[in-house]
Amino acid sequence: MTASVAVDGVLGGLLPPDDRGLLYGDGLFETIRCVHGVAPLWARHCERLRQGCQRLALPVPDLDQVQRQLITLCEELPDAVARVTWTRGSGPRGYAPPADVRGRLIVSVAARAADPAPATDGVAVRMCDTRLSSQPRLAGLKHLNRLEQVLARAEWNSPEWGEGLMCDDEGHVVCATAANLFIVRDGALFTPPVDRCGVAGVARAEVLATQPVALRRLTLHDVASADEVFLTSSVRGILPVRQCAGRTWRPGPVTRSLQAQWRAIGLP
Amino acid sequence: MTASVAVDGVLGGLLPPDDRGLLYGDGLFETIRCVHGVAPLWARHCERLRQGCQRLALPVPDLDQVQRQLITLCEELPDAVARVTWTRGSGPRGYAPPADVRGRLIVSVAARAADPAPATDGVAVRMCDTRLSSQPRLAGLKHLNRLEQVLARAEWNSPEWGEGLMCDDEGHVVCATAANLFIVRDGALFTPPVDRCGVAGVARAEVLATQPVALRRLTLHDVASADEVFLTSSVRGILPVRQCAGRTWRPGPVTRSLQAQWRAIGLP
Repeated sequence: MTASVAVDGVLGGLLPPDDRGLLYGDGLFETIRCVHGVAPLWARHCERLRQGCQRLALPVPDLDQVQRQLITLCEELPDAVARVTWTRGSGPRGYAPPADVRGRLIVSVAARAADPAPATDGVAVRMCDTRLSSQPRLAGLKHLNRLEQVLARAEWNSPEWGEGLMCDDEGHVVCATAANLFIVRDGALFTPPVDRCGVAGVARAEVLATQPVALRRLTLHDVASADEVFLTSSVRGILPVRQCAGRTWRPGPVTRSLQAQWRAIGLP
Repeated sequence: MTASVAVDGVLGGLLPPDDRGLLYGDGLFETIRCVHGVAPLWARHCERLRQGCQRLALPVPDLDQVQRQLITLCEELPDAVARVTWTRGSGPRGYAPPADVRGRLIVSVAARAADPAPATDGVAVRMCDTRLSSQPRLAGLKHLNRLEQVLARAEWNSPEWGEGLMCDDEGHVVCATAANLFIVRDGALFTPPVDRCGVAGVARAEVLATQPVALRRLTLHDVASADEVFLTSSVRGILPVRQCAGRTWRPGPVTRSLQAQWRAIGLP
């Protein structure tokens, strides 16, 4: 795997151990697919990063500069996954955010291993025991506090499972460990709101912007009785679910149509 | 402020940007007071770190080596605050913990600024709007996902307030942003359990081990109607609360007695 990284613009840079991203998870990130140096969903990543900065009272990074770094690191890769991490930077000991914040930018890039099988055949999805706690002040954000996802993802290591669904503390199904969830019933699209927990995925935002979708809390029964189920991820795209909650599906027409739309914006 | 740091034993070391502590907050920390190179509560810090490693399925660091690094960094400081951070180390992209984990150890030390006033006169404590979300799988641990504490601590910047109390999602008072809470009523000690949220502080453990204390969920009314209220912190010690929830107190006999015990174990 080719991988390269820049810390505050310095290629191969390292991080000071007083960075608040490490100390407290005090920051945000974006995981961005880049095809031949182009990130088709770049504007949506910028939008989420801006909103995240506002909600965490972080300064907004220079997004043109971020984009230039991304392009420089990605341009020789036909298909890459970039991660942009933006932290509250260094500061004195203690939770209190420093008065004078100078954020720290980390951009890393790795070649994406092509694996068309999940998109073609769909993935088998399990249910995670680890639940998402309810925290409206952080819900929707792609922040650096991701231990719940780490614990949930650690519940399995068989490649048999392509993802795991996570429930909130009331038992509603919210999302997968690293993807959002959609179901189709009678031709209508539904996805859970992410106002109490979960991440407002960029691929989810793309679907919401181009299709009529109802935001609705979903039970496991809603998932199991759906006509189609799919996951969305900025890296993995539109992933049909072929098995979940004792049910199996073949990729359906709504999922296939969204996959075609995904390819049309430049994400093969 | 004198400060020094070692990353995996290398003095002045820096951190690779693929450390999972930064990527996901995937790790633990301890904040340890060291007086003339001695950490009186070292055994309790080790115990919590061990438990945290077990619950997060992290390897346990070589605690003798950690102690040697601490002593080396602290020995010339009469009063120091050390932070030991232990992460799941570097790994490939994705939440799945690597199969072969090699943890990363960061030990940093800074001189402690002496301020006897809070211990003598007590601190004024406010109520934070940011609530603690309920997550039994992480409750009690001093892990690296601390955005709730950052948001709560960012609610004030006046030195008038020495701490802020945080409630759980049911409105029970659980702890301060960086300290645990005790109340005294009719000579009996009470502290909230930390089984759903909050950190099981090392200073709290010291009090629990040496006094009869009832674990009980506390309302704000319980706090306001208590005979004495105090906070515990491994760095700040036993801190009397002199003002909270519209009430004022003078440091009481139970608080004073615990402060004397604190000094007796070598924490001035």
